[in-house]
Parts: sequence; C-alpha cells; structure tokens
Amino acid sequence: MSESPSVKHAVKNQFDAPEKELPLPEGPDVITRNAIALNSLNPDPRSKLIFDNLIRHLHEFVRETQLTTDEWMTAIQFLTATGQTCTPIRQEFILLSDVLGVSALVDALNNPTVGNSTQSTVLGPFFTEDAADLTSGDSIASEGKGSYLYVTGRVVDTAGRPIPNATIETWETDDHGFYDTQYADRDHPDCRGRLKSDVNGAYAFRAVVPVAYPIPGDGPVGQLLEKMHRHNMRPAHLHMMVEAEGFQKLITSFYPEGDKWIASDAVFGVKKSLVVKLRTVDDENEARSKGFAKGSTFKLLEQDIVLASPEETQRARESLSKA
Amino acid sequence: MSESPSVKHAVKNQFDAPEKELPLPEGPDVITRNAIALNSLNPDPRSKLIFDNLIRHLHEFVRETQLTTDEWMTAIQFLTATGQTCTPIRQEFILLSDVLGVSALVDALNNPTVGNSTQSTVLGPFFTEDAADLTSGDSIASEGKGSYLYVTGRVVDTAGRPIPNATIETWETDDHGFYDTQYADRDHPDCRGRLKSDVNGAYAFRAVVPVAYPIPGDGPVGQLLEKMHRHNMRPAHLHMMVEAEGFQKLITSFYPEGDKWIASDAVFGVKKSLVVKLRTVDDENEARSKGFAKGSTFKLLEQDIVLASPEETQRARESLSKA
Repeated sequence: MSESPSVKHAVKNQFDAPEKELPLPEGPDVITRNAIALNSLNPDPRSKLIFDNLIRHLHEFVRETQLTTDEWMTAIQFLTATGQTCTPIRQEFILLSDVLGVSALVDALNNPTVGNSTQSTVLGPFFTEDAADLTSGDSIASEGKGSYLYVTGRVVDTAGRPIPNATIETWETDDHGFYDTQYADRDHPDCRGRLKSDVNGAYAFRAVVPVAYPIPGDGPVGQLLEKMHRHNMRPAHLHMMVEAEGFQKLITSFYPEGDKWIASDAVFGVKKSLVVKLRTVDDENEARSKGFAKGSTFKLLEQDIVLASPEETQRARESLSKA
Repeated sequence: MSESPSVKHAVKNQFDAPEKELPLPEGPDVITRNAIALNSLNPDPRSKLIFDNLIRHLHEFVRETQLTTDEWMTAIQFLTATGQTCTPIRQEFILLSDVLGVSALVDALNNPTVGNSTQSTVLGPFFTEDAADLTSGDSIASEGKGSYLYVTGRVVDTAGRPIPNATIETWETDDHGFYDTQYADRDHPDCRGRLKSDVNGAYAFRAVVPVAYPIPGDGPVGQLLEKMHRHNMRPAHLHMMVEAEGFQKLITSFYPEGDKWIASDAVFGVKKSLVVKLRTVDDENEARSKGFAKGSTFKLLEQDIVLASPEETQRARESLSKA
C-alpha cells in the first residue's frame, strides 16, 4: 500500500484548538453547549448569529422529536438525493424550501407589506431573461396557447401617482400547465414578455388564462409530499416582476379566484391580496379591437400595481422585525 | 413548439385539495400556521410529529434570524453543493451533521448511558465489513504502520459477569492519519480487525498508537468550518464495535488523554468516560512476548468493555426522554 491517499482531502485548515477548554460530554446537553461554545470563535457577528440559531434549532428539533438513528439516516439519504437531483435546469432544494413554506416565509419577511403597495410572492424557478420586448397591447403568448386574457392597469406609487417607464416582466404556463422552458424543443420564448408603462403609468398586454399545474413530482420532494399526504398542485397564476427607478423591485403573481388549489398551494405562494377577479367580456368588436384573433369572448384582468419606495420598505421591515 | 415537455415530472400526485379551507396569508405568521395545518393531513402520527417539529423549528430559525433573501440563496447553494459532493465513498451530509453536533446528539439520545456500561459514540464513515478475523494477541496493523500499542481487557455485563464469544470490530488510522480506505491502491484491509472474547470475556490485540487527523477539508463542509473559524481536527482515537447475543450493540471509540484536540473534536465524538490512559511499557522481553517485532517499548491500553442489555438501554432511553 503506497503512502498516497486516494482522497486528497485530509488537510488541516488554518485554525488551531480554541484556548478555552470545553467540558467533555457525559450527556446530550453538553454536546449542544459545546457546539454553541465553539461557534463563539466566529468573529463575524452576523454569521455567528446564524449558526448559533441554526445549531440551537437543529438540536432542539432532534431532542424534541427524539429522532431515532434510522430516522436520522433517512434524513441524510433524503438530503443527499435532493442535492443530486439538482441540475442546471432543476433546483430541488429550492423546491424543498418551497413546499416547507420556507421560501414564502423568507419572501414575506424580506418584502413586508407597505401600506397599500402590491404584495410580493415567491419568484419560482421559471423566470428567464430572454422574454421579447413588447408594445402595449401585444400578446405574450402565441396563438393556441390557451383561452384569451387581457391584462391592463396602471403602475403607481403608494400615493397613487403614476410611475411611467416601469419595466414589467410577466410569465405564465400555457393551458397544458407547462412553461415554455419545460419543452425540450423550446426555440423561442413564449407565454412571457417584457413591456413598459406609459407616461400615465398605464400598461396592457394580451395573455392566456393561467391554469393550475403540479410542481415536479418525480424527485425526492415529490416523494416527501406523498409521505406527508399533501398534493403537489399550484393554483393558476400569472407572474409579474415590476421595476422602476426609485422604487422597490416587486416580484409577485396574481391568482384568479375560484381555483380549488388556492388555499393549499403546494408552495404557499398565494396571498389574500393577490387573489384577483377575471371578468368575462363577450363582445366580438371588443375582442377584435383588443387584438384577439378569434371569437367574441375573452377574460379581463384589471390590475393596478402599487410600488413602494426602498425607504418605505426598510421601515416596514424594521417594524416587522421588532414585532 | 411540440406538446412534449422536456421534463416529464409535471404529474399530479394522488392527493386532493384538503376539505378544510385554510386562511390566505397576509403576513408571515399565516404561512407557518398553514404549513402546520397542511401537515395535519398526515395519518401517520410519528411522521406528522417529525414534520410538525421540523416546520416549526425551520420557520422559527428563519424568523429569529431574520434571514435575508441572499442568505437563503447561499444556504440553498451550500446544501446543493453538499449533496453533489457525496459519492459512494464520501458522505458530505453525514460530515455536515457531524460538525454541527447533530450526529453526536442523535447518538447520545439513542444510546443513553446505562449505569456503568461503556458509553457509545459516533460510528464515523470508515468502518468496513472486510476486516480480517484475528486470534487473541494478533495485530490489526501491518508492520510499519505506527508506534506499537497493545490493547487488552474483558467484555463484561453491567454486573461484571464475563461475556464470552463477543465479537469485537476495531479500526483506526495509521500514523499518517489515514484509514486504509483512503489509499487509492488498498488491496487488503489494514489497521482493522475482528476478534472474539474468550470464555472469560477476555480479549487482546496489537495495534498502533492512534494519531489526530483532519476530517475532509476540501468540500462544502470544510468551507463551512473555515467560515465558522473552526479547526477540522479529530483527536486520536481507536474505534471499537462490540456485539454479543443478548446485549445491546456498542459502537464506541477510545481517546488517549493529552491530545490537544480532545476538547474541541470537530465532530463532537469525545465523551469524558471514553478518554483513556496509555501506559508506556519499556521491557524488551515483554515486547517480544506480546509479539512486537522490534525494540523494547510499546504502549498499553487496558480497557474493559461493559455491555448493557436491550432492556437496560430501553429503560435509560425512556427516562432520558422524560427528563
């Protein structure tokens, strides 16, 4: 046997044994105390706080649950499989965070409600940078992608003043419940677009009526949901991301009311204020004038977007963290 | 664009929307409550308890820490990299659990101290099934693997009665701090062996004096320890796993006293009762009679192994969970 190890990783790092002697464990409590004590070596207060809280909650979880050795090993294998399911186009750990409500919670804490401003929600994994630039009234979806939807409104500040030249990115699935990126032969963006608000803050675009769809069910997170006896559906929604100079960037979605999955969204993305009403318009002239190719019927979503300033957001975040 | 998605995962599972309507979130608290409420659908009480506790602690961690969106993304990327570092011969998630004290805590809770029985500690990733069967007094290490160590004692029950025919597996690194499995050209097991206690419960074997060594530092967990300003060393130790019919299986290690890393073991594996004294023997006749090839000096570890019965262990576990 040679002297060269196969795994070139057994290298000591630059840190020495701490000067303070720690007590040697006789029972579980000392393990937790020692892990926290070792963490006191961390000179960065933010990083120290994060790991203090992480270790404390992990240990409390294990202790309260009286986690067995077999359950611990199941968790290790689950986390390993979750990491190994990730690819450049699939992020299973974000999906895990989503279904446990963690992503929605992080979003809610970092993007608190500011007065009457439009609430945010989770970005999701389907935003792309390559959406086409559209002119007001254009369609984000090619013909045949679903039932017609017309979306219109104004981008305004919390005092109701128009915000001109705001950039609106919007994206959604087709009526099969698939985003364009989920098709193997995607050769151009579809069911997504980028447009600007006009001098009065107004915007308008054609789209398709969004439909409910399942999140990926063939990986570890899909198995987890089955283990939890939970469905893997998201209610129908239309994504919007709105940016304007001097305002807080808004990432949100609108959920047409009446969807059976709306109260139990698998990723906890729905917020009360983001549930919207679609009006049915049945008027052939109106349909033609809006640019719809066929028939007389379309759905109408009239939705203003209210942006907060960074200062308003910061104040709301501080008052939330004090609460 | 065809109708066949590239990712064949968007399949609804067998679960329907819950009959009970959940409130739609306006703020962070409702997200946590809804995640717990959805978990109430789980018909298996143990699984429900695990996920209730997990969701509660995860959410409390995020909330108390006021985790930012960037920090959340860093965590997602870290967990992904940790999963992707795992291979058939490397388990980075166990290493993560180890350095956060979780493995030691799970071990301590599942293998509580029973009277005077020998305490357990973490198995670690270096046990193999292929150790050679040895006769009492044989060496587990080939010549040149380190300084001589003679290990001897008795396997007994908590009343001090001998346990004959107990199987003892033992393994350790060589004096470079590498286990045999860490060498690319390993063609046979070394620094490990399997033997039996005799009719009086006695056992004896030759080995090498264990040395301190670093845990893998070239992966995400190594980077985490650097971020935490923690060293990645384990103090010297000799692993033992002891099994006998009618007794609780014991997985443990013995840590020679005086090691500088003993109080800050990177994986929290040391327990007070597992720190042992090595005696120096300097007697050429004694060295030859024990079977050591050269010189007059060797270290002696005299260590009895006390096994608990499954009933004793169960009672201790129950009293720990009530504490």
